[in-house]
Amino acid sequence: MSHIIFEKRKSVEQVEESTELAPKFDQSGILPVVTTDFYTGEVLMQGFMNAEAFKKTIKLGEVFYYSRSRNKIWHKGQTSGLIQKVKEIRIDDDQDSVWLRVKVVGGASCHVGYRSCFYRSIPFGDNKSKIVLQFEEKEKVFDPKKVYGDAPNPTKL
Amino acid sequence: MSHIIFEKRKSVEQVEESTELAPKFDQSGILPVVTTDFYTGEVLMQGFMNAEAFKKTIKLGEVFYYSRSRNKIWHKGQTSGLIQKVKEIRIDDDQDSVWLRVKVVGGASCHVGYRSCFYRSIPFGDNKSKIVLQFEEKEKVFDPKKVYGDAPNPTKL
Repeated sequence: MSHIIFEKRKSVEQVEESTELAPKFDQSGILPVVTTDFYTGEVLMQGFMNAEAFKKTIKLGEVFYYSRSRNKIWHKGQTSGLIQKVKEIRIDDDQDSVWLRVKVVGGASCHVGYRSCFYRSIPFGDNKSKIVLQFEEKEKVFDPKKVYGDAPNPTKL
Repeated sequence: MSHIIFEKRKSVEQVEESTELAPKFDQSGILPVVTTDFYTGEVLMQGFMNAEAFKKTIKLGEVFYYSRSRNKIWHKGQTSGLIQKVKEIRIDDDQDSVWLRVKVVGGASCHVGYRSCFYRSIPFGDNKSKIVLQFEEKEKVFDPKKVYGDAPNPTKL
């Protein structure tokens, strides 16, 4: 659908130091994306994009990801209403990773019901072998059963 | 080296709602990691970890990544001195992605010399097919030639 052009990757200098957009997708045709809240800076989620999802996001200003488990593009918020409106798109030095700064309609991004998908922390730096995660968000923002109904849970074992 | 235990993945509820650490590595044995500056919230870089790099990071409180191009673990800052000291480790809902909040010794994380690897932005939402990246950092923090010398550039075409 989109006519956005990705340049051919010609040199390290072009990729790192120029203003040309020449993204690198991995052998599966995807690249990792990190999404942060524009206002708080909090990391909301980490996902993937293929070329089409990336072009749609650039063109439309709402976030499209590529689902590795479902093998298809999804428009974040299509089911839940929790659309991510793009405020800024950044690309990294070797152009194989994208950082999105977004405004989240509804204030939550996690299918479990939390604001951020990263609602638990891992204690570190001690000598324990048994790790006990800590909940950093104490309450869910929404009830996933009400928002998603019977839609299959995206978490795979 | 590390005796940290990763639990077996038994159920969606265990993975999403419990305090057990049961990370999921992909078919290559890695998971994506996003690293932000603890003080500014800025995304510094995006990398990968295998199980050993993840355990070392948890145990030692300094960041170890897994290089896909070199097929080995690297201790960030070992060459440059730009060590990343862990302040917080978060894991996401389905435990296949990690968020690290770090303090960066030397104040820069990017091998090109910038503070963040994401020093360029992508204009979006217009109807142009030709994208011109914008530099969001105007000056390099360090001279990569002085810091890395003749070490091979990690950027691959």
